[in-house]
Amino acid sequence: MIDRLIEKIEKTGAPIVVGLDPTMKLIPPQILKKHMDERGECPEAVADAMTEYNRGLIDAVADLVPAVKPQIAMYEAFGLAGLTAFAETVRYAKEKGLVVIGDVKRGDIGSTSEAYAQAHLGKCVIGEKTFRGFEEDFATVNPYLGSDGVKPFVKVCAEEKKGIFVLVKTSNPSSGEFQDREIDGRPLYQLVGEKVAEWGEELMGSRGYSYVGAVAGATWPHQGKQIRQLMPKSYILVPGYGAQGGKGADLVHFFNKDGLGAIINSSRGIIGAYQQEKYASYGAEAYADAARAAVIDMKEDIAQALSNL
Amino acid sequence: MIDRLIEKIEKTGAPIVVGLDPTMKLIPPQILKKHMDERGECPEAVADAMTEYNRGLIDAVADLVPAVKPQIAMYEAFGLAGLTAFAETVRYAKEKGLVVIGDVKRGDIGSTSEAYAQAHLGKCVIGEKTFRGFEEDFATVNPYLGSDGVKPFVKVCAEEKKGIFVLVKTSNPSSGEFQDREIDGRPLYQLVGEKVAEWGEELMGSRGYSYVGAVAGATWPHQGKQIRQLMPKSYILVPGYGAQGGKGADLVHFFNKDGLGAIINSSRGIIGAYQQEKYASYGAEAYADAARAAVIDMKEDIAQALSNL
Repeated sequence: MIDRLIEKIEKTGAPIVVGLDPTMKLIPPQILKKHMDERGECPEAVADAMTEYNRGLIDAVADLVPAVKPQIAMYEAFGLAGLTAFAETVRYAKEKGLVVIGDVKRGDIGSTSEAYAQAHLGKCVIGEKTFRGFEEDFATVNPYLGSDGVKPFVKVCAEEKKGIFVLVKTSNPSSGEFQDREIDGRPLYQLVGEKVAEWGEELMGSRGYSYVGAVAGATWPHQGKQIRQLMPKSYILVPGYGAQGGKGADLVHFFNKDGLGAIINSSRGIIGAYQQEKYASYGAEAYADAARAAVIDMKEDIAQALSNL
Repeated sequence: MIDRLIEKIEKTGAPIVVGLDPTMKLIPPQILKKHMDERGECPEAVADAMTEYNRGLIDAVADLVPAVKPQIAMYEAFGLAGLTAFAETVRYAKEKGLVVIGDVKRGDIGSTSEAYAQAHLGKCVIGEKTFRGFEEDFATVNPYLGSDGVKPFVKVCAEEKKGIFVLVKTSNPSSGEFQDREIDGRPLYQLVGEKVAEWGEELMGSRGYSYVGAVAGATWPHQGKQIRQLMPKSYILVPGYGAQGGKGADLVHFFNKDGLGAIINSSRGIIGAYQQEKYASYGAEAYADAARAAVIDMKEDIAQALSNL
């Protein structure tokens, strides 16, 4: 799947992933109203509105970007109905040829991590039949529990030819509270980064990149540079561009000299573009066109930055 | 909710939580068969079997223990159908008067952590109506992302009078890989423990314990002792007893002198008791009676250990 991601990045010329993180404030009001009129004020109506909103976004960007990244928390917040919208979003995005990164930040130990890996990347065997849960192509994983927590994911990745992105240095302001603390003279996130490289060694794709990648926030370009050096064969999923303050010029550090090695996420900046001054002329009805325009601008911003590689 | 948990611990005399972590190997074969005969070999059949199995367990232990802890990964592994069984298990356990700890190990940043908190502890407001997602009383939270990741949970806990248990020192063999690494001469888990105490300071129940607790594994009694001292006002949820190797005598370190401050989890050791030599005479049909017997034995083992406090 890492090979497929790279192939799609090259084909689109866009190392960009669109974060599908719908909230009631981001869903265009006409879509929300339509489903509430139909089903009443209930989670099922919100879930249907999320699905319609996402379909519009996916249709608008599917030829421009290689991947989408639904954030499961936004769906889980609306209980089972919301998770139905998550499942449908994953299915629809894959139908449209997109790689799907499930931003699930799961992590536990042993058989429990294996159950999460089964849910998001693998399959369950029931009697003589096989079923798949949420069927993402990649999932994000939290490393706090150590190898016992991550290796069950790696095992399922090997079986399914899928991948994970392990949290190394997150984009948020307080990420340094634990991640930056020095251990033997080096910050914790570097130790985690080294482990990511180690976990990924035995799971290499044909393009020189591992199925095991990392998450490192665009808000920390200096640290990104170090992480890039620590794990040259791991893809880095970079959140924090746009709404969180990360700029195009900061991104160059996350890439390798081959122009590969990183994929930049933007969520609100794209899916909520129609609410921004710059794209306001599109209006809520044309939210998908606004998102498309925002992707094109982001693509240009990143290409500009990468021209300095 | 921490007050209610303490009250129930005192009433039952059992600082015990039963982990409801069903797998296809643990569900008694006659239950699995019944639902597969009805619905075929499909996730819905497994989900129905999980629900029936859990109901039997809950009925058998509801008067003996204060709480149950369903591990969401085991349900999530069977997709939406599995999560329906999780929701029904939470609902049924609460109906039977049990406190429910959702072992979800969620954690993200800002509005995303807030969405998880909403899903598991809080509510969503849709128009003029209010809905609740999975409705646990407590949730477990991963601290790797720092305060930005945990505080949204604390905020919802304050609104809902619910609680969290933050991962500090997990029970698995490789937990030390990051958690034990020394920062300024002290292991990372102690820094996390201090933060737990800090996060919990403003959210105190009436019994002198905070709504913000910690997770520390029974497999690490020495570290448990240190964690106990670092955060005297936080409850410690202690996994790893029984199947993972933690013994009654090791548990004494996790408690305060008042005999409170810790609640010990056992999952397989109780719900799979009927498969163990000691309780094999019950047979699969009487799996619930075997679980009840295992709880009574565990209660005695812990009482014995605590008599040395």
